[in-house]
Amino acid sequence: MLDDDAPDDLDPRAQMRWNGWGDHAEAKQLPAAVKALLPVMLGRIPRRAPAAALEDVDLRPSVLDEADRLALAGIVGDAHVRTDHDTRIRHSGGKSTPDLLRRRRSQQDAPDAVIDPADDRQIAAVLRLAGERGIAVVPFGGGTGVVGGLDPDAGGQRTVISLDLRRLTGLVALDEVSGEATLRAGTPAPEAEALLAAHGFELGHYPQSFRYATIGGFAATRSSGQNSAGYGRFDAMVTGLRVVTPTGELDLGRAPGSSAGPDLVRLFLGSEGAFGVITDVRLRVHPLPEVRLHDAWTFADFAAGADALRRVAQLGTGPTVIRLSDEAETGVSLAQVGRLGKALARGCSLIAIFEGESELAAERRVRTSAVLAAAGGTRTGEQPAVEWVHGRFSAPYLRDALLDHGVFCETLETATTWSNLERLKREVTEAITSGFAAHRAKSLVLCHVSHVYPTGAALYFTILAGVKGDDLDVWRDVKSGVNDAIMAGGGTISHHHAVGRDHAPWLEREIGEVGLRVLRAVKSELDPAGIMNPGALIASDA
Amino acid sequence: MLDDDAPDDLDPRAQMRWNGWGDHAEAKQLPAAVKALLPVMLGRIPRRAPAAALEDVDLRPSVLDEADRLALAGIVGDAHVRTDHDTRIRHSGGKSTPDLLRRRRSQQDAPDAVIDPADDRQIAAVLRLAGERGIAVVPFGGGTGVVGGLDPDAGGQRTVISLDLRRLTGLVALDEVSGEATLRAGTPAPEAEALLAAHGFELGHYPQSFRYATIGGFAATRSSGQNSAGYGRFDAMVTGLRVVTPTGELDLGRAPGSSAGPDLVRLFLGSEGAFGVITDVRLRVHPLPEVRLHDAWTFADFAAGADALRRVAQLGTGPTVIRLSDEAETGVSLAQVGRLGKALARGCSLIAIFEGESELAAERRVRTSAVLAAAGGTRTGEQPAVEWVHGRFSAPYLRDALLDHGVFCETLETATTWSNLERLKREVTEAITSGFAAHRAKSLVLCHVSHVYPTGAALYFTILAGVKGDDLDVWRDVKSGVNDAIMAGGGTISHHHAVGRDHAPWLEREIGEVGLRVLRAVKSELDPAGIMNPGALIASDA
Repeated sequence: MLDDDAPDDLDPRAQMRWNGWGDHAEAKQLPAAVKALLPVMLGRIPRRAPAAALEDVDLRPSVLDEADRLALAGIVGDAHVRTDHDTRIRHSGGKSTPDLLRRRRSQQDAPDAVIDPADDRQIAAVLRLAGERGIAVVPFGGGTGVVGGLDPDAGGQRTVISLDLRRLTGLVALDEVSGEATLRAGTPAPEAEALLAAHGFELGHYPQSFRYATIGGFAATRSSGQNSAGYGRFDAMVTGLRVVTPTGELDLGRAPGSSAGPDLVRLFLGSEGAFGVITDVRLRVHPLPEVRLHDAWTFADFAAGADALRRVAQLGTGPTVIRLSDEAETGVSLAQVGRLGKALARGCSLIAIFEGESELAAERRVRTSAVLAAAGGTRTGEQPAVEWVHGRFSAPYLRDALLDHGVFCETLETATTWSNLERLKREVTEAITSGFAAHRAKSLVLCHVSHVYPTGAALYFTILAGVKGDDLDVWRDVKSGVNDAIMAGGGTISHHHAVGRDHAPWLEREIGEVGLRVLRAVKSELDPAGIMNPGALIASDA
Repeated sequence: MLDDDAPDDLDPRAQMRWNGWGDHAEAKQLPAAVKALLPVMLGRIPRRAPAAALEDVDLRPSVLDEADRLALAGIVGDAHVRTDHDTRIRHSGGKSTPDLLRRRRSQQDAPDAVIDPADDRQIAAVLRLAGERGIAVVPFGGGTGVVGGLDPDAGGQRTVISLDLRRLTGLVALDEVSGEATLRAGTPAPEAEALLAAHGFELGHYPQSFRYATIGGFAATRSSGQNSAGYGRFDAMVTGLRVVTPTGELDLGRAPGSSAGPDLVRLFLGSEGAFGVITDVRLRVHPLPEVRLHDAWTFADFAAGADALRRVAQLGTGPTVIRLSDEAETGVSLAQVGRLGKALARGCSLIAIFEGESELAAERRVRTSAVLAAAGGTRTGEQPAVEWVHGRFSAPYLRDALLDHGVFCETLETATTWSNLERLKREVTEAITSGFAAHRAKSLVLCHVSHVYPTGAALYFTILAGVKGDDLDVWRDVKSGVNDAIMAGGGTISHHHAVGRDHAPWLEREIGEVGLRVLRAVKSELDPAGIMNPGALIASDA
């Protein structure tokens, strides 16, 4: 557990750049080949104005009044009601490209204060106080969200605070026989894995945000990691939750399977702080894998590769990781390592990794390889998969380098059935390129499939564009068209990034008017004052 | 689809005994060895009074008035508002032992009418009318429920109807590429499998109620079938739902994986007709298995067998069926086939079945066998597993034979983590035997594990008792003590039978006061008049 009086020293997020991704020391330069390619693909891109320095940012003054501050300090202690410039900026949003573009501006918004409660009792007291005093509460974990779920939105309240869960860390319980671990919600993912590894266990949830994100954040947003083929989405790992709401607390999940009414654990997974604060997460864990076997394959085109993925997912041959890059992403990936020439002729690259008990992993590799070969794949060795593992968390660093060069760069994702996958990919790609074209901007769209299910898969798009006007305005317009295309094309508004405020206007098309009424009814019951993350998940009426 | 004007002729449930299980033609006699064993185990059991004949039952008169009847007939047609004696009795409850004991009495309760809507539009109109006229609505599928979910409970309404979904049958859509099928909720399970098999697919959901239960019933109760190790619980198969509520309709489930807020599909799975009527279910299906491989094993005792199950479930070696009988159940099962003597010395029997693509199934069998052998198991050949498959749906027939002999016979089930499994089994067994002992009745408790998960398993108890007084009163008291023991012992109030009215008083201990408030809030939003299955899932305030 973190020490009460030294909150910053031990916080892994202290390394996180306030206006970019990750640790400054790991910042990436653009590879020369990519730099050369950019003007060819995106046209002449004007250099971006330099980003504002932290100390030069003109922050909206805090409207937390002295009575608020005293009342909050009475619950969490004086040191844990923070209103300094640096702390407020670092809690002013997540890590989407619009977030980072806003961080470059001289005028910025931020929560009025950042509160660090020590435990569930303090959280319950803060929520009670917030309801009484008209304070909106935005729960904050690792700060890596990319859908506007952390915006300092007061909704109809007088003031807004960020409720930072950094002090709720640690392994609360480990049942080694049943393979279940209970972790405090604020535990950063690397710390969670280290705590489990000390007992010979692993959670196995590795989204791109792994190094900074928290266990509670994964639960609140229904995250999905790179090993989802083997260990499942994060929500599939969750066997229990503890949630503190403004009007009471829940301990959910009594058994590995149940028919005791609707599964309420699933109602709080994905609730994004709109119903309450997730404080403990009970999770299925597995023994640390004995081996990790790597394979790379190439397919003639995306359709052939997707068909191979489908066969593997439906037969259930058991890879831990399986992912397919489309032609464009395969080409650019290879350009990054200086092998562009060969690349473009090489179709689509697929990576498959097998982990676990050694004989079983080897058997799964043999069985999966047979399916991939029968589907027309050609094995290209281990090396590309090993390289992918080494670079798996570094893509966001490249985005910073691209933004510095004036290139707009963002990602988005969706999911659909296998039969609809190519059509949706085509329609989303078209919505992106035509959206930018309407603003006279050239764009490049890369896509991969990194999460597979028996009935379908997720599509993950990386977008580069040469925007001449205001990136934020252009992107708002393009993204709106993309969301419409996803809804019209039968996809989900998000496969693993969540709803936040950015997708909230589309949620009614996803779950219908009645579905939205259900969410509002649950929120009204648990949060009658409407203090919990207003505008996230459920769009404001305004 | 069923013909509008000949509702009975094509209904598979027409074969179902009105006061027992299944088809009269398949009724079982008690094996001689069991008959000999009963007085030894349970003492002298008084012969039961003969059951009332259907025509002699004195049924509470229907209070549906002429205006109700005309209004309902205006929606569904005159032929589909049924108030005859036979139809009402056949919709007066499910197939729990208390249900069957009540069916033996001369005075009985029943819904005031049985309505057979043709489609979603008619259902929506019936629910609207019901709200206006104070009519409680109990959705009815196969009628195989065992937790009081079908009781003709008017709650605070003036009258109560059974909404029979028998006319909502058929395969609405099949996506062969994605492996997804949409079935109407009233489709009986055997018809669903036949429709899928015609296209080379299987759902693979085989609970003991398989021959009579419906797709919608499985969804509403979160059923789990005998092949759950391979194909998952029914709720894990569901990818989408259509639900008609009194205040609007929902089409849920847009993608195989999503982070578009809480998974609302899971809020309606297990809703037991309390929020609305499930009318369509979209399901993951798989190709018909190429092979089925059978194995039986024996373990020294339950602890050793349970440890072996755990290793298989956690390693993920992939059996389709895996189940373990405890010492008592192993002994009685063998007694039924005349091998009792050998049996009692033989510990616990385990059955493992492997289905699917032939090479993969064979590989899974080898891998699972290695785990079972390493855990101390001895293989006993294929035959016991083949016999189990042949008899897998016949246990309820034996219950009828036992009830005819005056023996009380019922089942109940729960689930918990692996580390808590033996303790919970012991405590539930103790609650059963001491509960009956308090009524001076001897009892015999058999138990098996038929649903396994990486983190835990379900316990299924079969209870025989020699009750001298009123079976219904004694059982109400014993079952209440058992439910308390399950809650105190960390189990779930039901693993796959659901809540109904029988378990509703315990639901607050399962999900807490806040969890119950959430369910009530959802119900109030969707069913403000409180007409939907009052008292089921959510206990009446009374």
